[in-house]
Amino acid sequence: MPKINPERLLADLRRLADFGRYKTGVHRPTFSPQDVESRAWLQQRFAEAGLNASIDGVGNVIGSSRVNGPRLLMGSHSETQPHAGWLDGAMGVIYALEVARAFAEDPACAGMGIEVASWADEESHYASMLGSHSFVGDLTDADLDAAKNRDDGTPLREALDKAGYADKPRALIDPSRYVGYVEAHIEQGDSLEATGKRIGVVTSIVGIWQYRIHFTGVQNHAGTTRMAIRKDAGVALVNLASAIYEAFPKVAAERTVWTTGRIDLDPNAPSIVPGGAKMMFQFRDADPERLLLLEKTLFDLVAAADAAGPCGVTIETVSRSEPKVMEGAFQDALEEAAKEHAPGMHVRMPSGAGHDAQILAKKLPAAMLFVPSIGGISHHYAENTSDDDLVLGCQVLADAAEKILKRAAK
Amino acid sequence: MPKINPERLLADLRRLADFGRYKTGVHRPTFSPQDVESRAWLQQRFAEAGLNASIDGVGNVIGSSRVNGPRLLMGSHSETQPHAGWLDGAMGVIYALEVARAFAEDPACAGMGIEVASWADEESHYASMLGSHSFVGDLTDADLDAAKNRDDGTPLREALDKAGYADKPRALIDPSRYVGYVEAHIEQGDSLEATGKRIGVVTSIVGIWQYRIHFTGVQNHAGTTRMAIRKDAGVALVNLASAIYEAFPKVAAERTVWTTGRIDLDPNAPSIVPGGAKMMFQFRDADPERLLLLEKTLFDLVAAADAAGPCGVTIETVSRSEPKVMEGAFQDALEEAAKEHAPGMHVRMPSGAGHDAQILAKKLPAAMLFVPSIGGISHHYAENTSDDDLVLGCQVLADAAEKILKRAAK
Repeated sequence: MPKINPERLLADLRRLADFGRYKTGVHRPTFSPQDVESRAWLQQRFAEAGLNASIDGVGNVIGSSRVNGPRLLMGSHSETQPHAGWLDGAMGVIYALEVARAFAEDPACAGMGIEVASWADEESHYASMLGSHSFVGDLTDADLDAAKNRDDGTPLREALDKAGYADKPRALIDPSRYVGYVEAHIEQGDSLEATGKRIGVVTSIVGIWQYRIHFTGVQNHAGTTRMAIRKDAGVALVNLASAIYEAFPKVAAERTVWTTGRIDLDPNAPSIVPGGAKMMFQFRDADPERLLLLEKTLFDLVAAADAAGPCGVTIETVSRSEPKVMEGAFQDALEEAAKEHAPGMHVRMPSGAGHDAQILAKKLPAAMLFVPSIGGISHHYAENTSDDDLVLGCQVLADAAEKILKRAAK
Repeated sequence: MPKINPERLLADLRRLADFGRYKTGVHRPTFSPQDVESRAWLQQRFAEAGLNASIDGVGNVIGSSRVNGPRLLMGSHSETQPHAGWLDGAMGVIYALEVARAFAEDPACAGMGIEVASWADEESHYASMLGSHSFVGDLTDADLDAAKNRDDGTPLREALDKAGYADKPRALIDPSRYVGYVEAHIEQGDSLEATGKRIGVVTSIVGIWQYRIHFTGVQNHAGTTRMAIRKDAGVALVNLASAIYEAFPKVAAERTVWTTGRIDLDPNAPSIVPGGAKMMFQFRDADPERLLLLEKTLFDLVAAADAAGPCGVTIETVSRSEPKVMEGAFQDALEEAAKEHAPGMHVRMPSGAGHDAQILAKKLPAAMLFVPSIGGISHHYAENTSDDDLVLGCQVLADAAEKILKRAAK
């Protein structure tokens, strides 16, 4: 059994958190100076682990195995959301590195290869899951031309040039090279903690369906316009949101989530009746049938609001990602390994967040392992996981990787 | 009876609209180059009408009467909201000028003085009703030091300096000099038009009570945070707004209006459960008792929302302006004049908007006359009033001014 080195694992996690340290977390947006430095450090650590390490044309840091036997691709992403946590995807990258080192140190693992990747920009500073999309061949040069930084509008091409990646080739997957892909990540929710579990075996990654709802009223003076004749787009928005919040619990499954994260009134001034309004609305579920039912419910509510007036209400579909079921045999291997190290403290669960694994799953059998997030906090500098859970998760991952590769070799 | 000159009235209104013309309206923010030019033009027109014309230290353009008999102060404001209408307050300024000219031309009006004012910045680009507040002695030098442009933060002192007003003295009211104050304005709503009336005699200017409501939840990931444990500040906002919209019609009077013009979610990102939210809420009514009842209703709903959780809800009072009852004898004079020129087409009504008259009313008996707004539109370049209504309104104002001054002389 490949034995991970807990001290080395924790030391590398902490070292990586030095790049862009912010309070108890990290501020390391994609292709920021801190992110570029951290990629160079990762490349060096991958090389020190005996891997052929390189950075590709979109910033993916890839450590290829020199082994000729069956190979398992492992990794996650290392950039962060603004002022976010030190683990998040960084944990999955360092886990993969530690598993590769444990394999290299274990004679029983000779002939089994672990390849390690840090996929660029999973966090969408320029383009959602840029690196894994590029690696599976989903990204055209035109996509690269069009991508811009979501905050300051810097073109992606300019950022890649500044980082020194622009002239490098983009790595492209050869699916025949791998048995599959396994990614570890913090849960980012509180399900594990709330139920006293320490390992989550991901069954599927949810589909995320997003919509923009537009309300069209008439802008007017908030003092002189009688209530009876107002067409207040903000009131229309509140009424529809309220109707959605009442209807959704009745058609949602146990794990369905729905969110209005963004509301914009026009002109958003205290003494003006809003003439326009927009809200972003999204829901997530792992079941395609459920997603369709939720969408129908939403569309019916929008149509009813539009028909009722006095404001016009229209809905625009922003994105509809497919739920991805994780490879059953890999789930079994993760569960068996969890049972050995933490009996009774593991659970199968869907992932409510999107991950690079859903992109890799287009080309390879894929699976994911979750470790607990303290207080369920993520995308905030307070994000954390206990050292014991960090060590346990990595050992379970290493054992599961061995099981997967051994079974593939048969 | 002082006879106004319709052609001269309309020509001056159109000339004033040249300063900052925008589509069919005007863009003339306070102390913009166009506004400063227009004040110089007004000063010149006041002088040509035989008045002692000056611009004071905050940009008030004042035309003092040379007459020694009873004097009536009349006026409004001439700057505009961004990309707004050509009439709004500008109409009241030119009406006052035309009434002063009609008085000067009518031997029967000898010994009765009309003084004309364009009060600076009623539209709050720097400070709400800056000019009239200064004139009644409500504004300290510290207030002037603190005021900044609401859009670009330019200090008021800098703007006054650039306009050439900084070294001029501020005009201060001598209440014994005037019988009272009368202001004409467009209605800015559709009440007159909807009921086929042409003249509104203002009974009172409503009180505007404004609040900022704060919602405190917990920011989290929109995919991994189960619905059951969310503290979504945006949902709390929608629920409270919905409760207000349900409760207010039951406690409102016929003319009460209430508005949420501004909503801000934090961080306002599609995939993040909002951790904080704010909404501005205001209501207006002319009856102090009604305002108190509406406030109690609001505070009770906020307390209930806070108690119900899961988000904290607190309310902050932003402003509570006093409703101002207009002088009864002046209302009678306006109504009698309206009856002569437009029998059956006049009505007494409150003003839902704030006006300089409510500031002048602190020191003088005050009254207001409204003319119809086509389609109820205001603060938009499409704002308009028919020429016939413009002429009628000014003649009614002139006659009422004569009645007021004659009665004062007795």
